[in-house]
Amino acid sequence: MSIPRIEEQINFIIEIDKLTSVFRQSYLINEDRSENSAEHSWHVATMALILSEYAEEEVDQFRVIKILLVHDIVEIDAGDTFCYDEIGVQNQMEREKRAGDRIFGLLPEDQAREIFELWQEYEAHESPESKFAGALDRLMPLLHNYHTNGKSWRKHGINRDQVITRNASIREGSEALWAYALSIIDKAVAKGYLAAS
Amino acid sequence: MSIPRIEEQINFIIEIDKLTSVFRQSYLINEDRSENSAEHSWHVATMALILSEYAEEEVDQFRVIKILLVHDIVEIDAGDTFCYDEIGVQNQMEREKRAGDRIFGLLPEDQAREIFELWQEYEAHESPESKFAGALDRLMPLLHNYHTNGKSWRKHGINRDQVITRNASIREGSEALWAYALSIIDKAVAKGYLAAS
Repeated sequence: MSIPRIEEQINFIIEIDKLTSVFRQSYLINEDRSENSAEHSWHVATMALILSEYAEEEVDQFRVIKILLVHDIVEIDAGDTFCYDEIGVQNQMEREKRAGDRIFGLLPEDQAREIFELWQEYEAHESPESKFAGALDRLMPLLHNYHTNGKSWRKHGINRDQVITRNASIREGSEALWAYALSIIDKAVAKGYLAAS
Repeated sequence: MSIPRIEEQINFIIEIDKLTSVFRQSYLINEDRSENSAEHSWHVATMALILSEYAEEEVDQFRVIKILLVHDIVEIDAGDTFCYDEIGVQNQMEREKRAGDRIFGLLPEDQAREIFELWQEYEAHESPESKFAGALDRLMPLLHNYHTNGKSWRKHGINRDQVITRNASIREGSEALWAYALSIIDKAVAKGYLAAS
């Protein structure tokens, strides 16, 4: 027996409350604790509201924000994979795909498809919107690290080359934001927040 | 001396990280702690992505989501005012207006104005978008209360009439969501999560 459409929608909304229990490697600037993925999703979606003028190609700002609102929901099942964890990154896609099937599958079919497509667009990193969303998603932890004196970088012994390699794709989304990112990476090295090599 | 536009924008983005330190009266469903306003802002903006078909009047879904992303930022200075706190509600507007001036004022002037207008539109509760955003913002704590066995209602000794009075404006944003809200209010009374009177 199928359940009413609104019940399916509310079940999804209740389920995604769990994103508040997924903790990231980034530290909040204002509190001495890790950031969770719900907080991050809000922060980066709001960032898109402010910084879209720097997108490399013309973007549909609403689509960028929709992508960012849903881009981490799969972490409810798949967990947050630290971007410098090379083994975790290998099977990340498979774990996240299963998570998407289950969690987006709570929604009515049309909406499940829509949200799944937004998430897959993000992962494919091909559209102007997904490249710009990806740029914001990578810039944000740089800001968090810089404004917490490199807390997460220092904890994991990350150096400048690793940060540059990992974040170079910001450039595909925005040359201007990549230039800004490089400026704070260099300031972080100068201040001793990030190892030079 | 004026600072570069991008620095003003980043200063705002760094500042609003503080919304993670503003705690609401609602409890998370999945964790035994109060929800903060950053988590809430993400959750309710994503809710707008799913439930916009129920808006009473036709709405610009993107505008609803923009309103919801920024609607609580003033709480960084003004704090969260519990909706059943009648004294706090009286000077809430004045405290929040000062907060908006300071926090949105970190942005370049054009963006400061845009975000201030989104927030004022929300507070005025006149446009179809603000009425629908308001409906979602009120429905969400009902869901949180219901799915935590009435935790916040019981803590504050709230009864059914108070919940009905406080949330009746959901109806202006969406008759369908108000019907849904009434159904869970009645189930909450039946289950003993909410006092009947």
